[in-house]
Amino acid sequence: MDVLKHFKKGSPKPELPNDGILRLYLMRFCPYSQRASLVLAAKHIPHHKIYIDLTEKPEWYTDFSPLGKVPALQLTAVPGQPALVESLVIAEYLDELYPVRQLLPEDPLQKAQDKILIQRLSPAIDAVYPVLFTKDPPGDALPNFENALDVFEQELTRRATPYFGGAQIGMVDYMIWPWFERFPALKHVVPGEYELDRARYAKLLDWVDLMAKDEAIKEIALDSETHAQFMVTRQEGQPNYDMAFPVAAEE
Amino acid sequence: MDVLKHFKKGSPKPELPNDGILRLYLMRFCPYSQRASLVLAAKHIPHHKIYIDLTEKPEWYTDFSPLGKVPALQLTAVPGQPALVESLVIAEYLDELYPVRQLLPEDPLQKAQDKILIQRLSPAIDAVYPVLFTKDPPGDALPNFENALDVFEQELTRRATPYFGGAQIGMVDYMIWPWFERFPALKHVVPGEYELDRARYAKLLDWVDLMAKDEAIKEIALDSETHAQFMVTRQEGQPNYDMAFPVAAEE
Repeated sequence: MDVLKHFKKGSPKPELPNDGILRLYLMRFCPYSQRASLVLAAKHIPHHKIYIDLTEKPEWYTDFSPLGKVPALQLTAVPGQPALVESLVIAEYLDELYPVRQLLPEDPLQKAQDKILIQRLSPAIDAVYPVLFTKDPPGDALPNFENALDVFEQELTRRATPYFGGAQIGMVDYMIWPWFERFPALKHVVPGEYELDRARYAKLLDWVDLMAKDEAIKEIALDSETHAQFMVTRQEGQPNYDMAFPVAAEE
Repeated sequence: MDVLKHFKKGSPKPELPNDGILRLYLMRFCPYSQRASLVLAAKHIPHHKIYIDLTEKPEWYTDFSPLGKVPALQLTAVPGQPALVESLVIAEYLDELYPVRQLLPEDPLQKAQDKILIQRLSPAIDAVYPVLFTKDPPGDALPNFENALDVFEQELTRRATPYFGGAQIGMVDYMIWPWFERFPALKHVVPGEYELDRARYAKLLDWVDLMAKDEAIKEIALDSETHAQFMVTRQEGQPNYDMAFPVAAEE
């Protein structure tokens, strides 16, 4: 049973059973953490979730992630119980170790091209982040964001499959999804109910609708209002990490 | 026979024989390009080198690298002659396709840990770049750089092998090497003949000396004076990309 709050500075290290079950250290609203959660969920890999407050990190967190970043995945069944960091490294490790529902293609060229495609989301993220998380984003942020997304519309057209992974969800799909779950929050934070253009991104928006039906995605998803509310708390310098958890009853 | 100059805006696209030989697009002083060159050299993989001026990029370069970044590796023997980008993706692709002298470990955990270690160089690079390439680096740049390098000294101690790859050079060694080739340029650009502390980085500096003897590294290496001279031209806003090539005789 996961503790539904973010551990912070001063929080004692959680006492977890020595059960050999993977431990994922994450932040509820972190898209990189969500990548690891999605792979774990898609492959039905049992794991404990330990939430970390990124503003006031618990002192013991660097034992698992030397630079204090999330996600980190602790391999409790391996001697020394090492922890892995970097969302893409964690995702690929899990895909190799748990080949059920394999996510990356076997072919070295296809695998390389998929990894490059995952990186191609960076310009879109870089452009849209100031819009989502700051009060005065640059004026060209949304046009730059839209231009960067064209690559994904083109790629779905070129691949001519419902998912980037083909007929089934693959690694690209899960690795870029966390941002596509957040982009609709733009309609709550940008004046004028901003939406992506249905004609320009026809295939990509169909893909979004299809992805939203996936069991692993539904298990972790938050709605766009919740994402937007979190973004506002972050804009104001007081990110409310616990916002998506049920409020504990007062004792 | 490679053309020993950087192609720039207005340069016609080079006419290369349709020989199925890999084509590497790179910049002579780019450490990310050097990663790809090192893997190609270590595995004795034939390739053409096409040098790209990063300030005034040739118009045709986005055909191979949509964002204009180097390195790019064009697979001329594959239908459609696709190009790969991202130095780590290129390196891993080459390692899978040319398993002679395999660089990454087979074991998923060791492979993941090696990939994480490669990423751990980023804080050192981020700290030292302003010292190498700008005129007024922040005062804490060198201490931050040194702290970030401690990880590598500790890791060589923990692994108790001459190379990060073990008894032989592995992927970590080649992927981090380009920056270690450049760090000694600090003695030319920082007042007081700056050197890394031999006691603090005993194992790491032994590793540097050992690496410098590797055939693949020697094939591509530039000395610290040349790196420093290039850095000065870049600091001045006029990077002299062709500096390391023999000067063509006047006609």
